[in-house]
Amino acid sequence: MKRILSTIMLTLAIAGAAQAQELANFSRGNRPVISPEIQGDSVTFRLKADYATVVKLSGSWMANPYGGTIDMTRGEGNIWSVKIPLPSPEIYTYNFVVDGVAVNDPQNVLVQRDGTRYLPMLIVPGERTGNYGEAKTHGTVSHPWYDSQILGYSRRLTVYTPYGYENNPKKKYPVLYLLHGAGGDEEAWISMGRTAQILDNLIEKGLAEPMIVVMPNGNPGQQAARTLNIPEKTNVNWRSEEFRNAYVRSLCTEIVPFIEKNFRAIPKPASRAIAGLSMGGGHTISASILYPELFDYICPLSAAGSATPEQIAALKKAGVKLYFLACGSADFLFEGSKTLDKTLTEQGLDHEFFVSDGGHTWANWRLYLNTFAPKLFK
Amino acid sequence: MKRILSTIMLTLAIAGAAQAQELANFSRGNRPVISPEIQGDSVTFRLKADYATVVKLSGSWMANPYGGTIDMTRGEGNIWSVKIPLPSPEIYTYNFVVDGVAVNDPQNVLVQRDGTRYLPMLIVPGERTGNYGEAKTHGTVSHPWYDSQILGYSRRLTVYTPYGYENNPKKKYPVLYLLHGAGGDEEAWISMGRTAQILDNLIEKGLAEPMIVVMPNGNPGQQAARTLNIPEKTNVNWRSEEFRNAYVRSLCTEIVPFIEKNFRAIPKPASRAIAGLSMGGGHTISASILYPELFDYICPLSAAGSATPEQIAALKKAGVKLYFLACGSADFLFEGSKTLDKTLTEQGLDHEFFVSDGGHTWANWRLYLNTFAPKLFK
Repeated sequence: MKRILSTIMLTLAIAGAAQAQELANFSRGNRPVISPEIQGDSVTFRLKADYATVVKLSGSWMANPYGGTIDMTRGEGNIWSVKIPLPSPEIYTYNFVVDGVAVNDPQNVLVQRDGTRYLPMLIVPGERTGNYGEAKTHGTVSHPWYDSQILGYSRRLTVYTPYGYENNPKKKYPVLYLLHGAGGDEEAWISMGRTAQILDNLIEKGLAEPMIVVMPNGNPGQQAARTLNIPEKTNVNWRSEEFRNAYVRSLCTEIVPFIEKNFRAIPKPASRAIAGLSMGGGHTISASILYPELFDYICPLSAAGSATPEQIAALKKAGVKLYFLACGSADFLFEGSKTLDKTLTEQGLDHEFFVSDGGHTWANWRLYLNTFAPKLFK
Repeated sequence: MKRILSTIMLTLAIAGAAQAQELANFSRGNRPVISPEIQGDSVTFRLKADYATVVKLSGSWMANPYGGTIDMTRGEGNIWSVKIPLPSPEIYTYNFVVDGVAVNDPQNVLVQRDGTRYLPMLIVPGERTGNYGEAKTHGTVSHPWYDSQILGYSRRLTVYTPYGYENNPKKKYPVLYLLHGAGGDEEAWISMGRTAQILDNLIEKGLAEPMIVVMPNGNPGQQAARTLNIPEKTNVNWRSEEFRNAYVRSLCTEIVPFIEKNFRAIPKPASRAIAGLSMGGGHTISASILYPELFDYICPLSAAGSATPEQIAALKKAGVKLYFLACGSADFLFEGSKTLDKTLTEQGLDHEFFVSDGGHTWANWRLYLNTFAPKLFK
């Protein structure tokens, strides 16, 4: 076997370009270009571009307040580079701009998917990102499909079960339903939100209860993320009376029972939490209004939604263990969150209003998950 | 809720660039550039590139025998395009080359991952690709981690359970262990091999038995795909005597029991199949030699491995229901496959030698899976 494999390695090296697309890992063995490279308090980006005229770097850390791009400089071997001060600890995305065209970093194996775009990540280590990398122990991420009578088709979910789920077949777990925003899908919280890493780390450190996390697709016209090549259902008026709150109804009356049937979930309000960002924050608020007795933990994040005093009163009557409202002070929805906070206060519903810096960003949503997950089910 | 969402959409439209990276799906609503566009027997690729000097198209259908790239032409609005005859039905990958730099197609939502590279896909419809698109029904894909004593850490698996698995909690299923090649990882068969789509379609059409498919990571130094940012274990000599056949031993004595404990698998040789491509074909052959009684179905594909007459005789004695050997006639391992076929014939082991056109490619491995999966467990 050893001899045969050596022969293959040699043969592959000779086989060359015609086979190259099937054997990507090989070509990375001896890479001359390293990018990005963090050294002390700086980071260097590099791209080999033999015939480019202008190469720039664009990074999410530049988006606000500086905007724009940074010029890169052509060096030996047509390797363009730029060295910049390391941004503060966070996960950023970036790309190169080669003669006006956005290009991903071919040297960077860390990529996140935002809707239909793949973007290289720069993870700057630090306290803020301490739970965003891989833990020693790992939960299981799965993608089951549930049948929705309300929406008229089967739909893809993302489900995280914590480390130990397989080895403790008698144990039942509480469940967090975690909802994405407009533009997202059932993989948004996993890819950009680092949900598996955050939960793995929090649970491993004993900071959060082992829990199941369910991440549905919040777009009623989608069966699954658009990357799966299933046409969206566009011949339906999702805003018609028939489909009013259809996704939230599907979540509460179809997804919750599906999870409680197929996973070892504790089927009680005290073991159910709901959280969501932006549009998902609106879904969270709607679910709490339409089904006030379903969830004891309610966390609207950068929320696009509001509730009337009467609705809050009904929720208070039903009993809530945690109402965690979070928003960035620079978020365009901050005024709405402040209004909701005021209504909650006026109605005497115990709650926490967590205000962070920054705006409507995944940097904040990761921070919020990392902040509220330890407060659940305790 | 409706009014609030309309306000958000408007606000987002105004919010502009600073938020753009969080809201990818929105920006695609009104896209002026369509790429790729299949029309009749041609396909057009387009890329907006304002400042590029030379833009080319490179596609996997060109790799052999033509090689190279095709020039694209600048048109109105700096949209570069090229219209070519539609290649024969298959899944191809392609990219643009902008002033010498490889660029993915920003308009194409269909992307496959090969090791650490993301590549846009062109799916040409036809009989050959009939099972490569999404079926109506979908199995569940999950990523559990198993603890390996042999390799010294927990490792990530990909597991496909067929449609109906959740709704039939008493039913047990046969299991196919499906192994990737050198350069691949536990997602290779899902991403490039279209395993979920092929099995969904075959099972939906009644052509294959509902089965579980287990896709491990065959690189003993890796806990998981490199995209997960877990450092590889490089301080171990995986070729030393201690680790001889370590991955195959882990597969047969750790992964098989893990699956049969945590999934509703039928724990019998007649309900176990093993198949693998290239290096995974070598693993398949090694597993059949080291554990001749474990699998009744053995399928080395474009295999990098061989067996002695004595080893084949032992296997024959153990009893095999199907030995399916497959290779492309242009594969650089074709001679080795022919030798194995000859040995199998000489030893009187009933087998099938499936010879296809082409070489060491995913086009062939998809074809092989689509061909042998219906022969399993019958």
